[in-house]
Amino acid sequence: MTFIANAPFLPLPELRKVQQNNWTQQRQHLSGSEFYRRHHPAAPFLFPLDLEDIAELPLTDKEMLRADQSVHPPFGSYLGFPSDRVVRLHRTSGTTGQAMNIALSSADALMQAHIAGRSQSAAGLEPGDIVVHCLNYQLWMGGLTDHLGLESTGALVVPYGSGGSELLIRTILDVGINAISCTPSYPARLEQIIAERFPELTPRELGLRKGFMGGEAGLDDPTFRQRLETVWGMQAMNSNYGVSDFLCNFAGQCTDQTDLHFLALDVALPELIDVNTSEPQPWRTGAEGELVLTNLSKECQSLVRFRTGDLVRLTNTDKCQCGRTAPRFRVISRTDEMIVVRGVNTYPSSVSAAVLSCPELNGEYRIRLTHKGPYDRLPLEVELKSSAYPSDNLLARLSHHIGQVLRLTVELELLTQGELPRTEGKTKRVIKEYLS
Amino acid sequence: MTFIANAPFLPLPELRKVQQNNWTQQRQHLSGSEFYRRHHPAAPFLFPLDLEDIAELPLTDKEMLRADQSVHPPFGSYLGFPSDRVVRLHRTSGTTGQAMNIALSSADALMQAHIAGRSQSAAGLEPGDIVVHCLNYQLWMGGLTDHLGLESTGALVVPYGSGGSELLIRTILDVGINAISCTPSYPARLEQIIAERFPELTPRELGLRKGFMGGEAGLDDPTFRQRLETVWGMQAMNSNYGVSDFLCNFAGQCTDQTDLHFLALDVALPELIDVNTSEPQPWRTGAEGELVLTNLSKECQSLVRFRTGDLVRLTNTDKCQCGRTAPRFRVISRTDEMIVVRGVNTYPSSVSAAVLSCPELNGEYRIRLTHKGPYDRLPLEVELKSSAYPSDNLLARLSHHIGQVLRLTVELELLTQGELPRTEGKTKRVIKEYLS
Repeated sequence: MTFIANAPFLPLPELRKVQQNNWTQQRQHLSGSEFYRRHHPAAPFLFPLDLEDIAELPLTDKEMLRADQSVHPPFGSYLGFPSDRVVRLHRTSGTTGQAMNIALSSADALMQAHIAGRSQSAAGLEPGDIVVHCLNYQLWMGGLTDHLGLESTGALVVPYGSGGSELLIRTILDVGINAISCTPSYPARLEQIIAERFPELTPRELGLRKGFMGGEAGLDDPTFRQRLETVWGMQAMNSNYGVSDFLCNFAGQCTDQTDLHFLALDVALPELIDVNTSEPQPWRTGAEGELVLTNLSKECQSLVRFRTGDLVRLTNTDKCQCGRTAPRFRVISRTDEMIVVRGVNTYPSSVSAAVLSCPELNGEYRIRLTHKGPYDRLPLEVELKSSAYPSDNLLARLSHHIGQVLRLTVELELLTQGELPRTEGKTKRVIKEYLS
Repeated sequence: MTFIANAPFLPLPELRKVQQNNWTQQRQHLSGSEFYRRHHPAAPFLFPLDLEDIAELPLTDKEMLRADQSVHPPFGSYLGFPSDRVVRLHRTSGTTGQAMNIALSSADALMQAHIAGRSQSAAGLEPGDIVVHCLNYQLWMGGLTDHLGLESTGALVVPYGSGGSELLIRTILDVGINAISCTPSYPARLEQIIAERFPELTPRELGLRKGFMGGEAGLDDPTFRQRLETVWGMQAMNSNYGVSDFLCNFAGQCTDQTDLHFLALDVALPELIDVNTSEPQPWRTGAEGELVLTNLSKECQSLVRFRTGDLVRLTNTDKCQCGRTAPRFRVISRTDEMIVVRGVNTYPSSVSAAVLSCPELNGEYRIRLTHKGPYDRLPLEVELKSSAYPSDNLLARLSHHIGQVLRLTVELELLTQGELPRTEGKTKRVIKEYLS
């Protein structure tokens, strides 16, 4: 058994049976894996029969996979499948280290397309829509594999890739395209091209009504969504959450709310663990922890208890208005952005919320760390609105307020509007000025 | 019924039954086509029950499809299938007129991948090979649809696209890639990059042993193949003949010979017609004519008796050494490159052969037409080798020789080495200096 057609709508106890069935096969498949037999720190170990006992198994992390691929190129000894059955290779960009090689068999490719299609369908993509896919098709999963995910919704998908924005605009008009799959920052680029080269056109007149996006945190910002609605007449959906090493896209919002439905419960087991102790956390609404994932059905590079590095909060396990039983979560932060101040875990997202609660600040901030933790206070640079002026009194008041909200001591520095560097795409909020 | 797994190896009488079965269904499907009901010049007409009678039907040409797409955008009234069942759109580049929109349903996409895989398999791609696919993934069929064709052989396919040649070389080395899918002109570009940026490396050391190429005539040139063998240690295969409006790739050479096997006889009916009279030509070894194609199994934009504009020669209908029963052909020329001189049809390929038969010439030539035909002599510019000198005597001798080979009168002009312009990719041999 592998994926089942209607999994996101099934009662959870029924899904649990599907998971257990898939695990029964998967543990046999995994028992042949060189990596889990030899390279795992707790090897050799037995895989439990009952999926309930999975927390007994050691965790797997990205560093272990990296090290293994460099000793056993190109796919690592965790390939777990004859290499002549691999039909597709993707690579990660390797921005935080060596690039990773991702292997898919034919069955894996089909399964990934189907699961990814669930996210796009939940976000409202359907037969009759014509969606242009504007992610890079060169090596990365975002191109080819996401294309096939979009197709599996029954929508018409136009392969476009990145770049060539002027031809893109002509193609959208020519073909009557009504939806776009892209990064959240791309519409701003298109606005620029329209202003420069199509002055007779407004973004709204392009006819893009649905945006399918993913990855960056900006999508959860209501201002961002509102802006796309106003300027483009476009509904921006967070429809593409995935972890390349694990599955390309397995969570997205539905049209009834903005949290992410976990849509792959038939083929993937999620857990939450405490970031500091690695202890399993209960799977219930409100729980927070690092997302840990196990492939229950995958032929190539199947992972057991893989640490994603994403800190998530489980926001709802009830059936959603949209009809999906699939539990919902929000991504809070990356665990490697966690800063420990006197034993309190802090994340950029909480800092951002605290900064935004001060009417004198414009929301821009930066945390500059000059040495490894622990810290006894949080070093925080913030920008004043252009209407506010720095003073000792203001400094003291804001330090107190932010400290109260975050429940720790802050070492605040007030900057005037525009002093912090702006970047395109993901803005780096935590700057580490030391070697880790 | 649609495609069958082993079609290229089936006895031809058995295949004929498959064709007839598919046609029986296809003619019902076609009877719902707006285009064939209303827009065809001989409409309304009945589709014959027996496939043998297909030559009674009128021909379809590219201009009719173009006109129809411009009145019924984006797919024309010959879509013949509910448009909300289309899942993939490709566009042709429109170098000879308006771009065409190509529509595929899920079933079409699967069928095209399977058929394209036959060509690549015949050319020697197999499980265990790692092939990097270096055609543009933006809109054109060559990217995504050919990628899936390559995958369907069971080989491991790396999506790369065009450009980024330096990263490509690093990726080939990193991953252990042993095969490349690209245009025939791309290896020369890679040689340049290697010379400039990897001076410690030779092309051969890159480890590319198999080249899967298509389209351009240069592939049939033994010198080109020999050069790739010498410089790269690479076997260059002509593995990708297709007609975007019809099927992306349905013919390729096998490893036993260099003619193209027609590999889609289960889903496509080929015919040959006389270029001037449009009369059907007998389907037997040695026959020449324009290739005309009918889709026997396709959901979207199914075509009946479509003029490809390619003049081909059927070179063999016997079973090949490789075991394939699939008939073999060579592409001689494009019919729109045909020049009529006093009633004799001439093509650049014959002119090329005649020019190459003169030891004083270096093989470069150009036919410059200043008015519409008919012509009473062929205007031909040729380049002398650097060792030869122009003279009236030489001119007379070469004119006589080339005229004899081509069986028409030539008006020869001798140029010195290097006078004709060189271009990357397809060199234009016939220059029309008038408006058609």
